[in-house]
Parts: sequence; structure tokens; C-alpha cells
Amino acid sequence: MLCTKCGKREAVYHRRYSGESLCSRCFLQSVEERVKRTINQYGMFEPKDRIAVAVSGGKDSLTLLQILYKIEQKFPKSELIAITIDEGIGDYRREAIKLVGQLCNRLGVEHHVYTFREIYGYTLDDVVEAGGVEFKPCSYCGVLRRRALNFAARELGATKLAVAHTLDDEAQTIIMNLLRGDPLRLARLKPVSDFVHPRLVRRVKPLCMVPEAETALYAYLARLPYTNRQCPYAHKALRNEVRIFLNRLEFKHPSTKFTIYKAFERIRPAIEATIGEVKLNECKICGEPTPGEICQACKLLNKITNHQ
Amino acid sequence: MLCTKCGKREAVYHRRYSGESLCSRCFLQSVEERVKRTINQYGMFEPKDRIAVAVSGGKDSLTLLQILYKIEQKFPKSELIAITIDEGIGDYRREAIKLVGQLCNRLGVEHHVYTFREIYGYTLDDVVEAGGVEFKPCSYCGVLRRRALNFAARELGATKLAVAHTLDDEAQTIIMNLLRGDPLRLARLKPVSDFVHPRLVRRVKPLCMVPEAETALYAYLARLPYTNRQCPYAHKALRNEVRIFLNRLEFKHPSTKFTIYKAFERIRPAIEATIGEVKLNECKICGEPTPGEICQACKLLNKITNHQ
Repeated sequence: MLCTKCGKREAVYHRRYSGESLCSRCFLQSVEERVKRTINQYGMFEPKDRIAVAVSGGKDSLTLLQILYKIEQKFPKSELIAITIDEGIGDYRREAIKLVGQLCNRLGVEHHVYTFREIYGYTLDDVVEAGGVEFKPCSYCGVLRRRALNFAARELGATKLAVAHTLDDEAQTIIMNLLRGDPLRLARLKPVSDFVHPRLVRRVKPLCMVPEAETALYAYLARLPYTNRQCPYAHKALRNEVRIFLNRLEFKHPSTKFTIYKAFERIRPAIEATIGEVKLNECKICGEPTPGEICQACKLLNKITNHQ
Repeated sequence: MLCTKCGKREAVYHRRYSGESLCSRCFLQSVEERVKRTINQYGMFEPKDRIAVAVSGGKDSLTLLQILYKIEQKFPKSELIAITIDEGIGDYRREAIKLVGQLCNRLGVEHHVYTFREIYGYTLDDVVEAGGVEFKPCSYCGVLRRRALNFAARELGATKLAVAHTLDDEAQTIIMNLLRGDPLRLARLKPVSDFVHPRLVRRVKPLCMVPEAETALYAYLARLPYTNRQCPYAHKALRNEVRIFLNRLEFKHPSTKFTIYKAFERIRPAIEATIGEVKLNECKICGEPTPGEICQACKLLNKITNHQ
């Protein structure tokens, strides 16, 4: 079957939600176009931005790095750097760090690795060992990684921090917050974070309109050296159930994930109005920005210290 | 194992979301108490209400009728009547109508049967026959049944219309509206409808805090003569998928359905504020209340007439 876009080359992908069948070249182009449109629509970047890309080494983040690299070629005053956080989970990140290094080398992009051990004095394995069953590694990791990324981006002089959350991640988070009874948290789920603080590097999500299946195919067709290795602590709980549910629905009713995301965008202003403006303070322990008095990371780290 | 409430009788039900194990008598009582609390919390009834109960003959609606009957015993100025709508789906309602009649007889409650054919001139089978694949029987049935119930309740002089939507129905509807991209519709999902119009009998949902598993057990333990017959058009689409998903989650994380409902209650005011007050007009064709110019039922009925 021929590509429905160029009509010349053999199609390799049937995009069920649009009805298109695409050849490799047209598919890659269409994902890049989608990311460009998302960046423009939400005003994610300015011409002189120094953009830190959070690159774990998985398909999503390598795809993000590659696409931003292509786009930024046209903005000679902008800069791109890559940050990888090594959480300290056995040798889990070893291969990934090597592969990210290779791609960065090929693209001529600086690559910086930061470790939980340097930043916090603990690896994630230490946290798990100290905490036993009651410490949920994924909750710790999420909070600590988010703060580590902001710390690294700021230290490296970045003006934006790009993360590789896909449409799937966002749709899952929307459903999960409802299931957890915490819908007001969703006010934060934005393509461009609107928290403002001198110590906070603004986070943007250029892949928020790209389904995960398409970042995987992009990484494969663009021959990106991504790793498929699963984190040994990968939570088998709620997010995984929601993922399976949404994938099954998407299969039967293509474009469900887009629909959820857009539905949520329609009610977000109402949720934001309910919450009002969130003012950020500086954490009394570490000085990092937080809506409360003590930041989430310090609260968790205190728990470990007290536990030992 | 003994009942954790009375400590005397053998437990027949383990309520996972609360940790209680209940004997038959304590279980029945606890469901009745929950319904009473819901009625009080939302101010569903006044002492002189003439309450029409929509009774299809399934476990939910017979449980509702039985519990309201018990509660209303203490309000001698209130009245209870039962309405069954016969949609005209083969002989699907025949057994149900007989069983509802039996229970009403036993309780001394008037029972009135209204048919789609009388009210609209069409049975649901006619709709399906006229429409072919593109007519979704469940959408038609939902709209026409809702209007038929209001018509019947009004004609019978009722001041309230009680429907047997359970916690499961409400949680499913919340998720479905997100999946369909129509979250603003959720403003309507209230325990007490706040649409006001002289031709509209106010709808209330006394079972909105009772999980479906518990209405089933209630009907069984209270020996209500309910029917388990499934509608032959029962949609196998979205609602069913959402039901399976939520039941699986509820099994793994007990009380998920309550959490969703409460999460939604927290954002509903924001959604309502977005929409503003909805003013009801009278449909230009049938005179029934509608937010637009032509009511949903007349639009659908027109489609059939034009299709024949």
C-alpha cells in the first residue's frame, strides 16, 4: 500500500485516528511538524533560549532530543544541552548514559550527567533499603528527579527545561488524578508550566500531542540508539492499569487519548480559577521553590534520615 | 466469622472499602441508613412530597422502591407511586412489569405502566427498524425514557421523580464524559437536578452513594422479585468497558468509585461556574422543557419520521 501523503513510497504505518497511511519519511516529518505546531501553539521557546532536554535514554526522550535538534538548527541563537539523571538504581542507567552520550556526540550537543548521590547524598537504592515496604520508590523518584532536573538545568544556565511527556503520559495522569480523588492537582498539568520563581527553570512538554506509539516508531525509524530496559522498581500499580485501559479504548475508539486531553483542557481554566494563583516560597531547608514551607523533596529526605 | 457490627450473627458480606463484615440484617440496615443520609444530605424530599419512583424491574430500582417505602412509612403525609416505562423491545419488559406489579401489590403502592408506543407512536423496535445501523438504540432509549418518565410523573401529579442510579452509574458517567470529550455536560450530574421549570418534575438519585454490588446483594437478601434479564440492545461499547475497568480497579484499590465521585464533586462547582445558569425554554414542537429550541426527543423522533 502506498503512502497516502506522498503517494510514492510504501506505507509503514497506519495512523488509525486520522485514517492516514504513511511511509517512513512522511511519518517522521509529520511527527516533527506536530511538535513544531505544539511549540508554536503554546509559545514554548524564544529564539535565544538555552534549552535543557531531560534525556533518560528511552524512546520518548531520545525522540524529543532529535526533533528539538532538527528544529533548533533554524534558530542559530538558541542552544541545546542534554541532562541525564542517574537515580542510583543498580546499574540500570549505565547503558542509557552510554547511548545518550553517543547520540549527543553525533549531534554535537553537550551531555551532563547528575546523580542522586551527588545531589542528595542518597541513591534510590538507599531510599528503598532505608524505607522498606512503606516507601514507594516511584513517588520518591518522581519528586527527587523533578528537583534534580531543575537544579541541573539552573546550574547549567538553561532558560527552559524540556521534558518528554507524551500524550499517553498526560491522558494517564488526568484519569489517575480523578481515580485518586485529587482533581485540583490537574491545574498543574500544562504544556508550559506557569509557576514563576527565579530559581525555577520553566518546564515545557513539546511531545504532549504525540502518542507514545509514535515516539516509539519515530525512535525506531530514525535509528535512535534508545534503550528498552525497564526500571526494576517500575510500579505495577495504578498507572499501568490506566495505561492498559486507555490503550484498549484507543484501539476500539481511535483518538480517545486526544479526546481526553482536549476535554481536560476545556475544564482546566475552571479548575485553575478554583485554586487561584499559587505563590512559590523558598523551602526553609534547601531554598528550592515550593508552594509550602518545606519542599516535597526535603520532606521525603527527612523521612529517610529519621528512619535510619 | 461473626458480623463486626452486631457481633452476634454470621457475616454474609465483607465490605472491602470499609473493612466491615456484615450479617444479613446489619447489611440491609446499613444500606438503608446510607440512603437516608444521602436523602438528608442533599435535601431530596419534603414531608408532603408525592414521589414517583422509576422502577424498571431490575435490582437497583426494586431496591430503591423497597428502601423508599420503608423510609416513607415515617412520613405519613408523603406518598409513593411506581412508574414503569415499557420501551417496546420485543417482550423484554413483560416479566419485569409483572414482578414490579407483585412488589407494588405487596407494599400497597400504585403502579403505572407507560409505553413508548402510547407516548411517541413508536416502540424502540420501530426506531431500530427504521434507523438501521446508524441509529444507536441506547441513545434513543435514554432520551425517550427520560422524557417519558417526566411526562408520566407530571401526569400522575408527582412532585419528585426518584431514579435508581447507583454509585457505579455515576462514576462510569464521569469517566465516560471525559473519554467523550464532553466534560461540561457533567455539570448536570447531580444527586438533585437543579433544572427548574413548571413542566419538569425534579429528579433525585437516592442511591448515588450505594455501589451496584450492594444494590444487588440488597435485592437478593431482601428477597425482592427482580429480573436479571438483559436488554437485547444492551450497548457493548463504551459504558461496558468503563464498567469493567472500574470494577477491576475497585477490586485492587477498594473505594475507587467513591473517590471518583468525590473528586468530581470537588470540581463540579468550577464546571458549573464556567457554564453559567442554564435557562429552560419550551420545545417548539412538543412544549416539553429544553435548554434549546427543539428538545432532544423531538429531534430524534423527527429523524425517524424523515427516515421512513
